[in-house]
Amino acid sequence: MSVKLAVLGHGVVGSGVVELFYKNKKSIEKRAGTEMDIKYILDLRDFPDSPFRDKFTKDFNDILNDDEVTAVAECMGGVEPAFTFVKSCLEKGKSVSTSNKELVAEKGDILLETAKAHNCNFFFEASVGGAIPIIRPLHKCLAANDIDKVAGILNGTTNFILTKMHDDSMAFADALSLAQKLGYAEKDPTADIEGHDACRKICIISSLVFGKHVYPKDVYTKGITDLELCDVDSAEVLGCAIRLIASVSKTADGKILPTVMPTLIPFENIMSGVSDVFNAVMVYADGVDKTMFYGRGAGKLPTASAVLGDVIETVKHTDTEVSQTWEAATDNSFIASVDEYRSRWYFRVPADKAPDAEGTYTSDAGTSFITDDVLSFKEAGEKAAQLGAMAFMPVMD
Amino acid sequence: MSVKLAVLGHGVVGSGVVELFYKNKKSIEKRAGTEMDIKYILDLRDFPDSPFRDKFTKDFNDILNDDEVTAVAECMGGVEPAFTFVKSCLEKGKSVSTSNKELVAEKGDILLETAKAHNCNFFFEASVGGAIPIIRPLHKCLAANDIDKVAGILNGTTNFILTKMHDDSMAFADALSLAQKLGYAEKDPTADIEGHDACRKICIISSLVFGKHVYPKDVYTKGITDLELCDVDSAEVLGCAIRLIASVSKTADGKILPTVMPTLIPFENIMSGVSDVFNAVMVYADGVDKTMFYGRGAGKLPTASAVLGDVIETVKHTDTEVSQTWEAATDNSFIASVDEYRSRWYFRVPADKAPDAEGTYTSDAGTSFITDDVLSFKEAGEKAAQLGAMAFMPVMD
Repeated sequence: MSVKLAVLGHGVVGSGVVELFYKNKKSIEKRAGTEMDIKYILDLRDFPDSPFRDKFTKDFNDILNDDEVTAVAECMGGVEPAFTFVKSCLEKGKSVSTSNKELVAEKGDILLETAKAHNCNFFFEASVGGAIPIIRPLHKCLAANDIDKVAGILNGTTNFILTKMHDDSMAFADALSLAQKLGYAEKDPTADIEGHDACRKICIISSLVFGKHVYPKDVYTKGITDLELCDVDSAEVLGCAIRLIASVSKTADGKILPTVMPTLIPFENIMSGVSDVFNAVMVYADGVDKTMFYGRGAGKLPTASAVLGDVIETVKHTDTEVSQTWEAATDNSFIASVDEYRSRWYFRVPADKAPDAEGTYTSDAGTSFITDDVLSFKEAGEKAAQLGAMAFMPVMD
Repeated sequence: MSVKLAVLGHGVVGSGVVELFYKNKKSIEKRAGTEMDIKYILDLRDFPDSPFRDKFTKDFNDILNDDEVTAVAECMGGVEPAFTFVKSCLEKGKSVSTSNKELVAEKGDILLETAKAHNCNFFFEASVGGAIPIIRPLHKCLAANDIDKVAGILNGTTNFILTKMHDDSMAFADALSLAQKLGYAEKDPTADIEGHDACRKICIISSLVFGKHVYPKDVYTKGITDLELCDVDSAEVLGCAIRLIASVSKTADGKILPTVMPTLIPFENIMSGVSDVFNAVMVYADGVDKTMFYGRGAGKLPTASAVLGDVIETVKHTDTEVSQTWEAATDNSFIASVDEYRSRWYFRVPADKAPDAEGTYTSDAGTSFITDDVLSFKEAGEKAAQLGAMAFMPVMD
């Protein structure tokens, strides 16, 4: 019997899913242990020249009411109508794999519960880190671990901009223009450069790792729009690269602290070598110590690879619910305040306010240094005010 | 009902499995969806002071004949008696997870077939890359990909030695002594420094990725014992780190080419930043482009983490065979000769034989350079003979 699939959306990711599926159909079927085919592609647009034109439909009900369709790949993006479509599919027992981080960050708890109630699966490997296997390793391969912290470079656009600022001394605005020209940044780049995209992804990771739904609105999020080239240069002299780091860690009082902030990474840390549009996620846990996952965080085929990996898993486990679930969050009291975020800190201050110590770097833009001590965000903010700092940022261990 | 486990061997890894299991028992049971306990620990030695002394047995038959035991962690090492024990367990329908790379590299095909025939699982995540999730991501998360190549730093001991040679300009013999002093290298370090350990691991990866059992004897393996400090220094001037790379790639004629060789890695490549005892595996495939997995390749709790991740998976899938299998190899005609290995090459030659070109580096030890052209191993060997080269090594892309 051949398993019938439907793909919702024929944009970059959706068309990639169709392309990669037919390219590797034979080996995919071998790995899934069954014949498979794509029966429907949902899109409101017309694709008269597509070799798959017979599969297109504009009516979601064609898919929903076709009992032959048992697995669905959702690649539309946005919360609605994706949420309504995905929920309806799960209620009919059709498993869904999605690349839609907004959907998972806002509605993951509800969809996981719906999947569980209807004995099917809701998978979302593609929603974080694109091609990088991270969701399944986190909840399967590292299942014996108590995870303390996850920290990642989860947005390729900002990482490309930061790489250009670092390697080619481009100003932020110029690097952004280049990213737009190369198609790495949207016309409206707000979601990337203000950190909202990375925030959604760390919400998904936080929910998965710590078992309770974390909403984007509860996450302290600072993007890279204020970042000045002089800080990138100073950081380099001090032995660090600056990257936009999304992280979540357990605090001493049993809460969790998810944040998104530009962060200095010492060159000894392998994450400092994550350049261009690549993403990486470091997991800190009691068994493994630390382990990192690296790869392309976006793009047509990389994201399609993750969606299809989930589809194959879902086809191998028809009528079994194997996805990890997390609880709905009734309030946000389990999320710690950013004031409690602890690290060493980078400061740039007026030269006459600089501490009299080794390891400072002075240029026209002021004096930069990294504290020896670990301070809380609150303490660092107080110190910044006291020194009249022009910039301060956390430094990764 | 509580699932009963047995752990074969109470050395470094086996004792780590017991320790990590009881440390995180509550969350492990939650993830497995059932209560679990370790009923037996097999070891010929006595552990009168162990808090688990009531669980020890010296008779494997206690475990084999106890129908209550459904999952076994094999952490003894070596081919025998591990092979006999594991095969007997699988024949009784007990799933086995192992950290034993020798066992998988020599007998993986037979054990996978036995598991399949008896509807249970043979898992071996811990046999490659210690804590690093690589086996499951390769055959699950990347299941939609056509994999072209896998290249990794798979031996922590040699990576520690190479890091010390590079960072601290220590000679090979001194770095080896330090590794032994710190417990990173065995008294008899042959298996590590001659590349045999890395060879076993690339055999397992090759078998898994390309579907046919690859034996260590069919893999061209060169360790790091001949490596001179002057080559490490020259490589750095030329913009590269030297690492022991185990790789396998598809050749143009449909064969596969597994090798283990000291290799230059350009600093732009993130693998050049893998230092000390850490391991990393880069996977090149049509969907993901490239994706890397990084972490501790050995050690008590890191390896235990991987063994227990497999045990949890096996407990979640009792009476279902979900492991990836590969075919037995009737001959080695599917393995290409190392002569066909293609890359750019590093040469160190007498100064008067050096090519008249930019990008060479001359010291007392001769002149070093990297070819612009890609050459086969055979061509590089001919060129080395012609130039009277003192050293030549491949350069990673």
